[in-house]
Amino acid sequence: MNPIPSIDLQGQEAARNRQNSLTKPTGALGRLEDIVIWLAGTQGHALPTTRPATTILFASDHPVADHGVSAYPKQVTAAMVSNILGGGAASAVLCQSLQVPMQVWDVGVENAYHVPEKAKNITHFVHGTKGVVGNLFEEDAMDEQAFRWAWQAGINAIDSLPADNKIVLLGEMGIGNTTPAAALCSSLMGVSAADMVGAGTGVTGSALQNKIDIVSKALLRCAHSSSPKTLLRTLSGREIVAMTSAVIRSAQRKMAVLVDGFIVSSSVLAACAIHPEVRNWVYFAHRSAEKGHALVLDHLDATPMLDCGLRLGEGSGALTALSLLDQAVVLHSQMATFAEAAVPDRDI
Amino acid sequence: MNPIPSIDLQGQEAARNRQNSLTKPTGALGRLEDIVIWLAGTQGHALPTTRPATTILFASDHPVADHGVSAYPKQVTAAMVSNILGGGAASAVLCQSLQVPMQVWDVGVENAYHVPEKAKNITHFVHGTKGVVGNLFEEDAMDEQAFRWAWQAGINAIDSLPADNKIVLLGEMGIGNTTPAAALCSSLMGVSAADMVGAGTGVTGSALQNKIDIVSKALLRCAHSSSPKTLLRTLSGREIVAMTSAVIRSAQRKMAVLVDGFIVSSSVLAACAIHPEVRNWVYFAHRSAEKGHALVLDHLDATPMLDCGLRLGEGSGALTALSLLDQAVVLHSQMATFAEAAVPDRDI
Repeated sequence: MNPIPSIDLQGQEAARNRQNSLTKPTGALGRLEDIVIWLAGTQGHALPTTRPATTILFASDHPVADHGVSAYPKQVTAAMVSNILGGGAASAVLCQSLQVPMQVWDVGVENAYHVPEKAKNITHFVHGTKGVVGNLFEEDAMDEQAFRWAWQAGINAIDSLPADNKIVLLGEMGIGNTTPAAALCSSLMGVSAADMVGAGTGVTGSALQNKIDIVSKALLRCAHSSSPKTLLRTLSGREIVAMTSAVIRSAQRKMAVLVDGFIVSSSVLAACAIHPEVRNWVYFAHRSAEKGHALVLDHLDATPMLDCGLRLGEGSGALTALSLLDQAVVLHSQMATFAEAAVPDRDI
Repeated sequence: MNPIPSIDLQGQEAARNRQNSLTKPTGALGRLEDIVIWLAGTQGHALPTTRPATTILFASDHPVADHGVSAYPKQVTAAMVSNILGGGAASAVLCQSLQVPMQVWDVGVENAYHVPEKAKNITHFVHGTKGVVGNLFEEDAMDEQAFRWAWQAGINAIDSLPADNKIVLLGEMGIGNTTPAAALCSSLMGVSAADMVGAGTGVTGSALQNKIDIVSKALLRCAHSSSPKTLLRTLSGREIVAMTSAVIRSAQRKMAVLVDGFIVSSSVLAACAIHPEVRNWVYFAHRSAEKGHALVLDHLDATPMLDCGLRLGEGSGALTALSLLDQAVVLHSQMATFAEAAVPDRDI
């Protein structure tokens, strides 16, 4: 396994010094300063850039979705992949608006779907799947073959990017996938299903209790294991596995990762459990409205950029944060310094 | 006085219906949905737009700044006006990046400043000032003449905009102006100086206590008055007065107002105290790191778009939020509906 490179502390320090020289009270741009300084560390340069960036979206179905854990039927995964490829989904609209190319990786979509005339800048990869998948509360989410296959998809996706790609935005589509994400996070963090499981696409009341019960059963079934890779295989899903290897591979290739919501964060949590140094290469775009996300962010000591009630997935939160990161980088590079503008600096 | 028009409830409802038809779980775009629905109400149209928008920045000095309430010397107001006009300040950089023209209104800058070759899209208005100003804890912040003069500047600024201007972004520059803003908010809300006063540009320890003492004295001096206009005159500053009339005038002209941080919010608070219907025409861009802002937002029942530690002023927070509003409007207008994309809607 390739090692995880260190962040460039000199680049980070140079960016911090520049921020402190700009015509504003020290720290007055809040997290717009933090994120640029972080990005500078990933690029080893005082003046980092936000392009080329690429959105990589992994899509997969989940046998557990047949057990009433989602407000939407399973066919929606396939229909939404088609909608993304056609440019009509939120993530595709944002990629178009922000001029970010998108890769859509089908790593286990169950139903057939129409592949429309593709929207500009969107590429479709069918990795397919091998091996056996299960519903996670009665049987493993994946057998070894399915797991390895999904893991390889994540590596392949990142390896397909040109070496000068600066930022990776990860997204996912998979009806039912807040259930495996909650199971994975609960298990890695030692938190009960009741504390971690949320409404997902909008389940409430007895349907929510059923979802909690399913995750509880899954946790009990896998209570003997503590290996992150084993828990990924037995409790999660193929897109979650692919995103985990993609996060690790991005860090190995020195690409910064802008993390979307709860599902992507579950992959980052697993990636950090496998390689703690991965943490330096990721920035959390937003605090999702999904219940368990705040717990995961706290666990990873993360203060996200946005907190505005997003819970859509598909990488939409990461893309929304990218539009702010774009402005943060413009401010960082174009604002005048105190010296340039002949503005007196603070006197107390 | 012209009345404040009502929001167009039909336009708002049409936008809400469209949001609910788009291919995403209901409400999954959080405040990106709320802000578009609000904007639709101000424009009376299901598909609102974010341009033309104009940033109007009012700059003024404050006699109280000679009493140790700011981390920066008073000359910074003039120097920063010059820096804004030259395009080097945060607000000017964001206006350039987001292609929003900017008006800079000098309504009482004390020191002379260099007027550089103006950056594209930035216009300079010297409203000048008349009347007498004071330090607010020993004497009125303005006499009647100074107050009327500042009030008129806000009206003139909004009246200078073309009728098709859709959004007004207000900003301010004035060393020491968190002090009058805190005094105004404390007085309008009945909150103590100790609860309202914050670090501003960065005062701490005994300097912060001095700032609290000054605001306390000012509140005691004006405790007999409850008229918002009188409190604006005796406790605030010329840019705060100008922004108050500008908020009211924007609503009268059916222009939506994107509210920046603590200082602009103090003007909105006063505007709403004068005309409560103004509240419908404003959206709060962000929760500032400045201590009192959260209290003002709660008082106005406002959930801002951003909460990422900004405390720069100049309209920089409003402009940052505009970059999100741009994406929100693109999503609203370009996402496919469930029907268009043939995606099955929720089944429970």
